[in-house]
Amino acid sequence: MIHKFIPKELNFFDLFERQVGFAVDASSFFKQVVSSGKIDQSVLQKIRDIEHQGDEIAHTIIGQLNKTFITPFDREDIYALAKELDDVVDMINTILGRMVIYKLSGENDHLIKFAVMIDDSVNALALAVKGLRNTKNSKSVIDACVEINRLENEGDSMRDMVLAELFEKEKNPIMVIKLKEIYQDAETLLDICEDIANVVESILVKQA
Amino acid sequence: MIHKFIPKELNFFDLFERQVGFAVDASSFFKQVVSSGKIDQSVLQKIRDIEHQGDEIAHTIIGQLNKTFITPFDREDIYALAKELDDVVDMINTILGRMVIYKLSGENDHLIKFAVMIDDSVNALALAVKGLRNTKNSKSVIDACVEINRLENEGDSMRDMVLAELFEKEKNPIMVIKLKEIYQDAETLLDICEDIANVVESILVKQA
Amino acid sequence: MIHKFIPKELNFFDLFERQVGFAVDASSFFKQVVSSGKIDQSVLQKIRDIEHQGDEIAHTIIGQLNKTFITPFDREDIYALAKELDDVVDMINTILGRMVIYKLSGENDHLIKFAVMIDDSVNALALAVKGLRNTKNSKSVIDACVEINRLENEGDSMRDMVLAELFEKEKNPIMVIKLKEIYQDAETLLDICEDIANVVESILVKQA
Repeated sequence: MIHKFIPKELNFFDLFERQVGFAVDASSFFKQVVSSGKIDQSVLQKIRDIEHQGDEIAHTIIGQLNKTFITPFDREDIYALAKELDDVVDMINTILGRMVIYKLSGENDHLIKFAVMIDDSVNALALAVKGLRNTKNSKSVIDACVEINRLENEGDSMRDMVLAELFEKEKNPIMVIKLKEIYQDAETLLDICEDIANVVESILVKQA
Repeated sequence: MIHKFIPKELNFFDLFERQVGFAVDASSFFKQVVSSGKIDQSVLQKIRDIEHQGDEIAHTIIGQLNKTFITPFDREDIYALAKELDDVVDMINTILGRMVIYKLSGENDHLIKFAVMIDDSVNALALAVKGLRNTKNSKSVIDACVEINRLENEGDSMRDMVLAELFEKEKNPIMVIKLKEIYQDAETLLDICEDIANVVESILVKQA
Repeated sequence: MIHKFIPKELNFFDLFERQVGFAVDASSFFKQVVSSGKIDQSVLQKIRDIEHQGDEIAHTIIGQLNKTFITPFDREDIYALAKELDDVVDMINTILGRMVIYKLSGENDHLIKFAVMIDDSVNALALAVKGLRNTKNSKSVIDACVEINRLENEGDSMRDMVLAELFEKEKNPIMVIKLKEIYQDAETLLDICEDIANVVESILVKQA
């Protein structure tokens, strides 16, 4: 019965570690699919599985939050973290869903580059979230957050560049509609990662 | 002067019951308008009336919240409920406004189906919100929330299906722009209902 | 060492006064650029400078909030104010960025009118935010908030009117895509100002 004595607060770290794991699964799968250029219905089952598991863990965290009086960090930060980590997986699911609907198969170099940046950002996020367990990690957590911010800035420039090219070269308005949305979604994903990094940094500041 | 002794907290339930009533008015009107296919300027006066009344009650709730020390459930849940019930009416107003601007009159079977789903979801929402008065209702409140979640999932598939068809068949890019936005808005409305159901469920959990 | 005795809370008013100053800089620059019709790469350096400074002050406010126990008004209102004032500058930066990417140079009367309304709204916002220092100002703060609400309503009608005209007259779908987004962004900017005015009003109510 020793587990009775393990402080409840540890659970949140375990839960977040599992939740960010689903974000890593999703971004890794996204990179793989986009690189292969094979975007078809079969892709959706896999990403929806990940999304479903991510949903469940997010619900578990919010449920745990509602039942727990003393939490390892501010309640609103726990809520924001759970909500926005869920948004990462949701957004990847949304993008892949749109690519299937738009029949955007075939390799797209811009999108491959975005997928690599997204995967890098989500992996830095995993480092940052896992590092929250122990204040000794604060240096590496901050480094990860800086990297996420850098990738978001790079993503901004990337999106501006690819949209300018799209409006310059693509003469088919329907294709403009499709790709514009996908590129903007990809950049939004990097924004969400940055928002999460901001939550992580604010948790660090309050612990200091 | 007996009303002096009625606990202030009751007011919130009365106010939310009135607020969700405006959401029901709006979704019922939306279904009626879309089914008739007569989308013209005259429609806007009616939906703006409802939206205006909904706005007022939302302001009353927030004002009451700022003046009340003890509330029947968590302050942030009251705030979220008032804000998001307002979003339901706003979104219906936005969609009808866009349909008028885009001159999208005539019957659209996909949109009629969306309007029915939206009306079903908002009616389930009314049940859930009214049920919050008494913990004895928790079974029917949860059932209503489950139904709202089901409708949101169905709405997701519906949107994917109609967008795929739109991009497949519609050759006029301007019409693609218009209908894509309206279909996505319709699905967003079901998302908002689901967000509210989540708030309601979190209120139940905390009461348990 | 007299500064030691100056209450810490004053800092928030100073910080918000500086932050809203960057919003005024941005909206004034936006009006100037749009009126000139010269939308090119050179415009971006200037707006990004303002955005960068605005970002820094927003971070300072959030950092200060995390370190301060007693605040001059509710923590969530301080957070919302800092976040949404930042959104004003971000949105102006976003719009100008899009106009450059879309090569939308040349005078556009609708956009000039929007830019004037946005600048009026942001100036009223500056009045409202600066007025928070002293409850004696509450009449002028409320007047400013009423004006911001009026401009948001006017912006709604304006957007509906210009979109209706755009879909009626513009035959190039790519141009429809571009201008639709810019007009909607302009109206969103007025929405953000209204959201901030709501936060300001709720601060006043709680102080009363």
